[in-house]
Amino acid sequence: MPVKQSRGLADVVAASTALSDIDGQAGRLFYRGYDINQIAGAATFEEIAYLLQRGAPPGRAELDRYLAELAAARPLGKLAASDLSGVAASQEPMEALRTLVSLASADDPDKGSNEPGPNLRKAARLTAQQPVLVAAYEAARRGRSYAEPDPALGVAGNFLLQITGARPSEREARFFDTCLVLHADHTMNASTFAARVCAATLSDMHSAVVAALGTLKGPLHGGANEQVMRELEAARSAAEAAGGDPVEAVGTRTAERLAAGEKIMGFGHRVYRVEDPRASHLRKMSAELGSASGDDTYYRMSRRMEEVVLAEKALYPNVDFFAATVYHYLRIPTDLFTPVFSVSRMAGWTAHVIEQHADNRLIRPDSEYIGESGLAWVPLGSR
Amino acid sequence: MPVKQSRGLADVVAASTALSDIDGQAGRLFYRGYDINQIAGAATFEEIAYLLQRGAPPGRAELDRYLAELAAARPLGKLAASDLSGVAASQEPMEALRTLVSLASADDPDKGSNEPGPNLRKAARLTAQQPVLVAAYEAARRGRSYAEPDPALGVAGNFLLQITGARPSEREARFFDTCLVLHADHTMNASTFAARVCAATLSDMHSAVVAALGTLKGPLHGGANEQVMRELEAARSAAEAAGGDPVEAVGTRTAERLAAGEKIMGFGHRVYRVEDPRASHLRKMSAELGSASGDDTYYRMSRRMEEVVLAEKALYPNVDFFAATVYHYLRIPTDLFTPVFSVSRMAGWTAHVIEQHADNRLIRPDSEYIGESGLAWVPLGSR
Repeated sequence: MPVKQSRGLADVVAASTALSDIDGQAGRLFYRGYDINQIAGAATFEEIAYLLQRGAPPGRAELDRYLAELAAARPLGKLAASDLSGVAASQEPMEALRTLVSLASADDPDKGSNEPGPNLRKAARLTAQQPVLVAAYEAARRGRSYAEPDPALGVAGNFLLQITGARPSEREARFFDTCLVLHADHTMNASTFAARVCAATLSDMHSAVVAALGTLKGPLHGGANEQVMRELEAARSAAEAAGGDPVEAVGTRTAERLAAGEKIMGFGHRVYRVEDPRASHLRKMSAELGSASGDDTYYRMSRRMEEVVLAEKALYPNVDFFAATVYHYLRIPTDLFTPVFSVSRMAGWTAHVIEQHADNRLIRPDSEYIGESGLAWVPLGSR
Repeated sequence: MPVKQSRGLADVVAASTALSDIDGQAGRLFYRGYDINQIAGAATFEEIAYLLQRGAPPGRAELDRYLAELAAARPLGKLAASDLSGVAASQEPMEALRTLVSLASADDPDKGSNEPGPNLRKAARLTAQQPVLVAAYEAARRGRSYAEPDPALGVAGNFLLQITGARPSEREARFFDTCLVLHADHTMNASTFAARVCAATLSDMHSAVVAALGTLKGPLHGGANEQVMRELEAARSAAEAAGGDPVEAVGTRTAERLAAGEKIMGFGHRVYRVEDPRASHLRKMSAELGSASGDDTYYRMSRRMEEVVLAEKALYPNVDFFAATVYHYLRIPTDLFTPVFSVSRMAGWTAHVIEQHADNRLIRPDSEYIGESGLAWVPLGSR
């Protein structure tokens, strides 16, 4: 008989991991023992992807080899490239990425093996390709080509270059790099857990990542950052149409929505009881980018929403809330916010698959049966 | 703090369901309260898909409407059809199905909604399309076309017709229909659980099914039936090359493998403590089909393996063990055994997504951190 029950598995330990750790009471996040507050702004996304996938921060020579591996992996595989235009024409961004990564397994030289060496190489390839897939999708649906990667830029800078068509400023590239670092891993979130459930059948890394992408797609997970921006855009449009101040208007609107029992996206978290440390970093970047853009309305609207939700519901902004305005100020199209999340989380997903395969046990929970019992089957002719 | 721990989530209740129930001590399986032993051979796969997805056995008129819905959904969508040949040329069967179902969401008329009506229609479409995707893939990689569905045949008969190119006998169609019924649902197995983890972020049914397909692909889950057949084929080839009796040889070989600590695929189950009731039905069908084929060697080899594993390890055959020889006798290519599993389990996956969306809570477990703590980040230049 099942002995333990927890709806949504809250507080149930589903796996052991050495990748990340959260102290929800203190609002702290660690990657392999390093506090995110030490890492953010001090390490590049590539160093963090290496740390997660390969176990320790790279030395200069190790990092150079890893960067070369990433650069070599950027060109899309033949199958994904050949199907890109059809996919871009008929699938939404996260649908398309789910499809494109599923296609990409065809051209991975290590396909068919879950061994440590092949898994490490696949992880690097998937990490290198994800930003290119997003940029290639964006370009294909706009009917344009995308810029060649600039060897002087890292993953973050090249992504902004390829998505917007314009070379990012040093600050933009640096801030976006920090965004990627902040989203790289987060213990047993739903998409990572889906990846591990998949990998635990000894299925392959691409299958696990495809499962994660489909899971991240949901509005209760990766979809939240996009919804935050949509809400800000809707509130601003409504206020401006009525000749009002968007900051005042979004405060009133948020209070009304809370009073009506609605959920405000971007607030609260299953694990953090205080502010999500990632939100603190993103808030600062949003303020600075908003100010530099010459129009910090969305930032000031976000601050007002934050005040209202804290006062009314005692909920703190989570990682999605200020990511929305940061991405907006970086001129990333709103419907690519969740894909951007996937560019970063690819580092964590792939590291979790490596970890699952290294010490595997099938993840097969129990369920509680709540239906009818002891029914007698009546043949169709007698029903 | 995490309060409950269970590696692999064994005995942890992850969700409530009214779809299926297992009594592992008594070796019984129920679909919505109906004992599988009453249903197997008495109900068609279409009736069981309806029962699972829509809540109760259909009356004649309801079934007719459902059959019409399935028939209308059979033609492949434009995107999946256009990319089929490239996928078939460069992806293995389960990789290809993962991709093809991901492509198929583009052409679902209800895409974008998780509401009950759209979800019911999507479930019917996915159930109707899965056998056609498998047949279309098989035809494309062989460079041939596949037969038009015969309105006089059900899902099972049409699948055999389209896969083999030959009209199945009445017994073949009936037995395969029973196979589909026996595999349609099985509580919180890994692929179904992956589908629910995905759907619980309020992601869509296609994403959840794609996650399930990638999970079923693993050799510890759906991949097991194929491996059973590969082992029988390897043992028979080795015996015949040595001039020995395959039945004697596989017994010796199995005993040796067990003595060496190897796992024999197709035996044991996390939930059943006695024989899996599905195995009992499949054993009978394997015997009858083997006998009718004029060469029941594989069946007799299976029986000997079963004796050895029971004597040495007290493990019973699971659903995968006799499914292998049944599918072999039905002339299904061995590398399509796991895809056949997906044709059936699509009924259960889609029903679980409907159930998850109807009363949702995010599935977000905890993890135990087992890595280092309190490390100080050293900048790259100082490492």
